[in-house]
Amino acid sequence: MPPVESRVDVLVVGAGPAGIMCANALAMAGTDVRIIDKRPIKVAAGQADGIQPRTIEVLQSYGLAERLIREGNQMHMCAFYNPGRDGRIEVWAIFSLGVFLAFLKANIKVHRTCPRCYCTNCTLSVRGSITLHQGAIEAIFLDSMKEYGLQVERPRKPVDIQISEDVDELSSPSSYPVKVTVERLDAIDEESKTEIIHAKFVVGADGAHSWIRKALGIVMEGEQTDYIWGVVDTVPETNFPDIRNRTVIHSENGSCMVIPREGDTVRLYIQLSDKDVVDPLTGRVDKNKMSPQKLLSVSKKIFQPYELADSKGIEWWTIYIIGQRVASSYSVKDRVFIAGDACHTHSPKAGQGMNASMNDTHNLAWKLSQVLRGWTSPSLLKTYEHERRKYAQDLINFDKEFASLFSGKPRTAENEDGVSHEEFLRHSEDSRAALESTICRLRSWNPKHQQCAEKLVIGQRMLPQIFVRAADIRPMELHDLLPSDVRFKVLLFPGYLTEARVGELGLLAEELSKPSSFLKKHSHDGNVSTVFDIITIAAGSKEDINYLHVPQFFRSHWTKVLLDDTDVTGSKGGHGYERFGIDPKQITLVVVRPDGYVGTIVPSTAIADLDSYFGSFLLPRVSLDS
Amino acid sequence: MPPVESRVDVLVVGAGPAGIMCANALAMAGTDVRIIDKRPIKVAAGQADGIQPRTIEVLQSYGLAERLIREGNQMHMCAFYNPGRDGRIEVWAIFSLGVFLAFLKANIKVHRTCPRCYCTNCTLSVRGSITLHQGAIEAIFLDSMKEYGLQVERPRKPVDIQISEDVDELSSPSSYPVKVTVERLDAIDEESKTEIIHAKFVVGADGAHSWIRKALGIVMEGEQTDYIWGVVDTVPETNFPDIRNRTVIHSENGSCMVIPREGDTVRLYIQLSDKDVVDPLTGRVDKNKMSPQKLLSVSKKIFQPYELADSKGIEWWTIYIIGQRVASSYSVKDRVFIAGDACHTHSPKAGQGMNASMNDTHNLAWKLSQVLRGWTSPSLLKTYEHERRKYAQDLINFDKEFASLFSGKPRTAENEDGVSHEEFLRHSEDSRAALESTICRLRSWNPKHQQCAEKLVIGQRMLPQIFVRAADIRPMELHDLLPSDVRFKVLLFPGYLTEARVGELGLLAEELSKPSSFLKKHSHDGNVSTVFDIITIAAGSKEDINYLHVPQFFRSHWTKVLLDDTDVTGSKGGHGYERFGIDPKQITLVVVRPDGYVGTIVPSTAIADLDSYFGSFLLPRVSLDS
Repeated sequence: MPPVESRVDVLVVGAGPAGIMCANALAMAGTDVRIIDKRPIKVAAGQADGIQPRTIEVLQSYGLAERLIREGNQMHMCAFYNPGRDGRIEVWAIFSLGVFLAFLKANIKVHRTCPRCYCTNCTLSVRGSITLHQGAIEAIFLDSMKEYGLQVERPRKPVDIQISEDVDELSSPSSYPVKVTVERLDAIDEESKTEIIHAKFVVGADGAHSWIRKALGIVMEGEQTDYIWGVVDTVPETNFPDIRNRTVIHSENGSCMVIPREGDTVRLYIQLSDKDVVDPLTGRVDKNKMSPQKLLSVSKKIFQPYELADSKGIEWWTIYIIGQRVASSYSVKDRVFIAGDACHTHSPKAGQGMNASMNDTHNLAWKLSQVLRGWTSPSLLKTYEHERRKYAQDLINFDKEFASLFSGKPRTAENEDGVSHEEFLRHSEDSRAALESTICRLRSWNPKHQQCAEKLVIGQRMLPQIFVRAADIRPMELHDLLPSDVRFKVLLFPGYLTEARVGELGLLAEELSKPSSFLKKHSHDGNVSTVFDIITIAAGSKEDINYLHVPQFFRSHWTKVLLDDTDVTGSKGGHGYERFGIDPKQITLVVVRPDGYVGTIVPSTAIADLDSYFGSFLLPRVSLDS
Repeated sequence: MPPVESRVDVLVVGAGPAGIMCANALAMAGTDVRIIDKRPIKVAAGQADGIQPRTIEVLQSYGLAERLIREGNQMHMCAFYNPGRDGRIEVWAIFSLGVFLAFLKANIKVHRTCPRCYCTNCTLSVRGSITLHQGAIEAIFLDSMKEYGLQVERPRKPVDIQISEDVDELSSPSSYPVKVTVERLDAIDEESKTEIIHAKFVVGADGAHSWIRKALGIVMEGEQTDYIWGVVDTVPETNFPDIRNRTVIHSENGSCMVIPREGDTVRLYIQLSDKDVVDPLTGRVDKNKMSPQKLLSVSKKIFQPYELADSKGIEWWTIYIIGQRVASSYSVKDRVFIAGDACHTHSPKAGQGMNASMNDTHNLAWKLSQVLRGWTSPSLLKTYEHERRKYAQDLINFDKEFASLFSGKPRTAENEDGVSHEEFLRHSEDSRAALESTICRLRSWNPKHQQCAEKLVIGQRMLPQIFVRAADIRPMELHDLLPSDVRFKVLLFPGYLTEARVGELGLLAEELSKPSSFLKKHSHDGNVSTVFDIITIAAGSKEDINYLHVPQFFRSHWTKVLLDDTDVTGSKGGHGYERFGIDPKQITLVVVRPDGYVGTIVPSTAIADLDSYFGSFLLPRVSLDS
C-alpha cells in the first residue's frame, strides 16, 4: 500500500519558539497550516528563558502577553560585583534601569527609539525583561493554537524533501511544489508510518541541527569560540542579597551571571576555565565530563564570601561552547524557509536567542498569509531573508563583543587592561536597544517623507503611546490597537479639528474613496476594512472634542477615533504628536505593517506616494463595480 | 419512599450577585457549600450592570477583576445637559473625574479615604466604574466556582425551612440545626423531587421577593416612592456626542441618564411622568401598560435636538417604582442570614445595588469560614448584621436624596428653586465616596492607637498603595498581596532598617514568638501562616536596602519584604508611610481583616493590645507543645 498523501498550504517543521510563533500566527490568520515535531512531548524545563521588551510587545499583538507577564519573573535591577581587596567579591554598583538610562543619556548618543523598558508611557504593566522557562512560554502558544484548532503532531520527523523544478509550478499561487515525506516515530505498523505531504510552503524551524537546512544544502557560516559556559537552574539557599536581581559577578575565580526566574528558581551562567570538558575528537563539549555538582562547586567559589547551596537540587543544567554562525541562505526558491536556531546560533547570555527566533517567524507569517490570500505578490517573501538575515548578522556581531567582554578579566587596580563594568553595561544595553527595534526597510522603499513624523523611523517598530478614545476618553495603548491580524494599519493624524481642517478631511476622504486610491484598489469586495484598518488620531482636548466631526470615511466605528490628550486622571497619555514628531498643522498618514513596523509615512498632499507604496507589492483587485 | 436527606455546612439560596459572591468565596476557602436557584438558566441580559471601584477591588481580592475589566465598559467622563433657551437640551458641563476631584477639594471637606477612582497610585489599570450586563458578571463567578468544584443546582427552590429550638444544638459547632426542604422543579418523578438538606448555616440571597425572608417572618421596613423609571438597553443610532459618556440629561420633557455599556450597547434610565402605568390594585407598576417603543419615544423627546434611533432593537427593558426598604433583621439565631436584595431595595441609579449585595456576602463569607474552621467564636457572626445593616440604611438615605435630586426639575433662569448640577454632582460623588469605603467597626474595638497610622481608618477599607519588593524592586500593589483568603494580614512597618532598628526588631520577634503571643496562641499546629500572613514594609531606598537584615521571623519568604520607594522608572510607588500617616521612627503594626478592612493599628510598644484584639474573637488553640 502506498503511503498516505495529503496537501497543506504551510507545513511547519519543529515546535520550538520559531515554529510555534509561526504556526500560531498562521492559525490565527485562518491559514491552512500543520506543524510537526520529532520530540514525543513538549519541553518541560530549562532551555531558553528570557523574553525581551520588544518580544513582549509582539506577544501582546497576538493577545498572549498577559499570561506571560502573570507567569513570568520580572527583572528590574541589575547588580555588579567585582573582586574586593581581599580577593573576594563585593558589590561594585546597583543600577536600576532608570538610573542607567540617565547614565546612557549623559554619556552616549541616545537612540531615537524608545525601548519599552525605558518608557513611562505604556499600558503593559511590565518594563524590563521577563524570564520564564521555555516550556511555560511554549505552553502559551500551544494553548492559543489549540483555540484555533491546531495542535502539534508528534513525534514526527521529515525524512525527505523535494522542491519542484518546474517554473510554472513554482510561480503558480495554487500549486503545491514542495513534497515532504514525514515519518511517525510512534507508528504501530508500517502502513501508518509514512505520510507524503504536498505543501505550498514549508518552514524549517527545526533547531540548530536543522534537518531541513542540511537537506537543502544550506551551510552555516561563522565560527566556534573558545568560551565554554555552564548553566544551572536551581532554587538556591544563599545570603547573597542580589539573588533576585540580574547580577553579573566578575571574580578571581571566574565570572557568573545570575538570572532570577519564575517562582524561587534562579539560573546561573558560569564561566568554565577547564578546557578538558571539550571532546578532542568532535570539538564539542562532552556533557559526561561535567556534572551539576561540579558547576555548583565552581559557583560557590565565585560567590565567596557569600554562601550558596542547592537545597532542593538542580532543575536543569547544560554546558556549551559559544558558536556564532548564520546560515548562507534563509530560503530555497521562496518556497522553503528556515527560521530560528536553524539559521543563526549565538550565546544565550544576551538573552536574545529565543527572541530572535520568534521574531523571524513573526516577520514571515503575515507575508505567507497575504500571499496565500492572494493579496500580495509572492515576491514579498524575498523580504524575509533580506530583513532577518541582516538582523542575525548584527546579532552575531553584538554577541561576539558581548561574549568577549563577559569572558574577559575584570578591570581592577592590578589589572588596568581589564573590562570595566561601565564598558560592559554600556555595550550591553546600547546594543540591545538598537537590536530590539532595528529591522531593514521593507523592499526598496525610499523614505522621502520621513520628516513628516521624524521620530517614527520607517523600517523600525511603531512606538508605543497612550491616546484616549475620543468618544469615551478611555486611555488606550496604541499598540493594543495594532494587533498582528494580517491587515495594514493606516493611522491618520489630522491635527486639530478646526472647521477648515474638517473641510480638508472631507476632500481627503473624497480622494481616498476614488477607485484609483490604494484603499479601494487593493481591498476586498469594495470593503476597505478587509485589508486596511483606518485609525484617526486627532489633536485637541478631551473637553472640546466632538469625534462626530471626523468624516464618516475615517471613523468606521466610534472606537476608531483617538485623541492626543491625557486621560481624566492626567497621568496617562498626551504629547503623542510631539513624541512622534508630527506637526498638527499638517495632515499626516502613517502606515504600520501587520507586524507592527512603520511601513511608510506621507503627508496628505502626497497620497500618490502612498498609492505607489502599496502598488509595489499589493495586487490590484477586481472591483465589484467594474 | 422518604425524600433524600443530606448534610452541608452552608446552603446558599439564590444565585444572584449576593449568592454567587458568597458561594464562590466559600468554595475558594474550601468550605463545604451548596448553592441552589429556582431559575432554570442564568441571567442572560439586563438587570444590574454597574461595578463600582471598591467592588472592583473586592473582585480583585478573589482574582476576578482582570476578566471584568477585559469584558466591561469603562466610564471616565460625565456630561451634563440642561434645557437651553429654545427649550431643547444643550451641554451644560463635561467633567472628567480629575477635574471633578479638584472641584471637590476646592469646595468641600475632602474625605480622608482615597477612592480608587481618584488615586493615581494603583496597579489596576482602571479607575472609575465598569459597566457590564449582570449575566456576564455572574459568569465570572460561575466559572471561578466551577474551578473549585461548585456549580449552581437549578431549578430548585426551598419550600420549607425549620431552625432547631434546642439550645445545645444551636450552640454546638458540629450540629446541623437548619432543615431546608428543597424541590427540584424539573424532577421527572416524585421520588427525586424533594430533598431535605440539613445545614449548619443557610444564606438567603433570593432577591427582593425573598422566600427565605418571608418564611422567617422578617419584614421590610421603609416605603415606596413616587418615582417611576423605565430602563432600556439598546444599540442607539444617534448624533448625540456624549453617548459613550456617563451623561445626565435634564430636559423640559423629563430626565434621562445615559450609561454606556460593553460593546456598542447603551443603557438609558428614563423618568416617566405618566402615573397610569401603576396598577391601582397592587400599587406596583404594570409592565403591560408600557412598551420599549413607548420608552424610546419618551427618550427621543428628551434628546431633542439630537436624534436617537434603535436600529438594532431593544436588548432588554423594564419599568419600576423606587422602593427604599431595609429588612428588620438580617439573621435568625445567627444560623440563617439574608443578604443582598433580600434585605435592602433602592433605586439602581446610584449604581450601588449589585455592589451592596456583593459586599454583604463578602463581609459574611470569611466569618462563616473562620467559624466553620473552628478559628473564631460564633459570636463573630453577629457583626454581619451590625456592619451591613447600618450600611444599607446609609445607602437608603443616600438614595432618597439622590432620587429626589434626580427626579427634581432642573434649575434654570425661569426655575431658580430647581436642582443645580453642582448640587447634584456634589451630592452624588461625595456620598458615594463615603459609602464605598465606610463600614462599621468590627465589634467594640476601641481605636486607641488610630494616630499611629492616621490615614488608615480603623473600620474602613485598606488604602491601595504601590510598594516595591525589596529583593527584586518589582512594583507591587499592596491590595494584590491582601487576597480574600480567610487569613488576617499583619503589616509590620519597621521604619528604616538602621542597626539599632534591626536590634529592636529582633526583640520584637522574640516577644511575638512566645506562646502567649496572639501569633502563637491562635495559629494552627504552631504554624503562624495558617491564620496570619506577616508582611514587612520597610522605609528606605532601593539602592541601599538589604532585605536579609529583616529578622527571619518577619520574612517567611523573600517576597514578604516590601520597601516604600519608587520602582526603577520612578513612576510607581513611594511615599507610602506618608500616605498612611505612619512615622518611620516608630515600629507600627497594622492588621487587615480577611475582607480587606483595617482591623486595628498598634505600636510595637503595645503588643498586649494586639493580643487582646485577637483574643476577643479568635479562639485559643491547643499548642502542640503543651
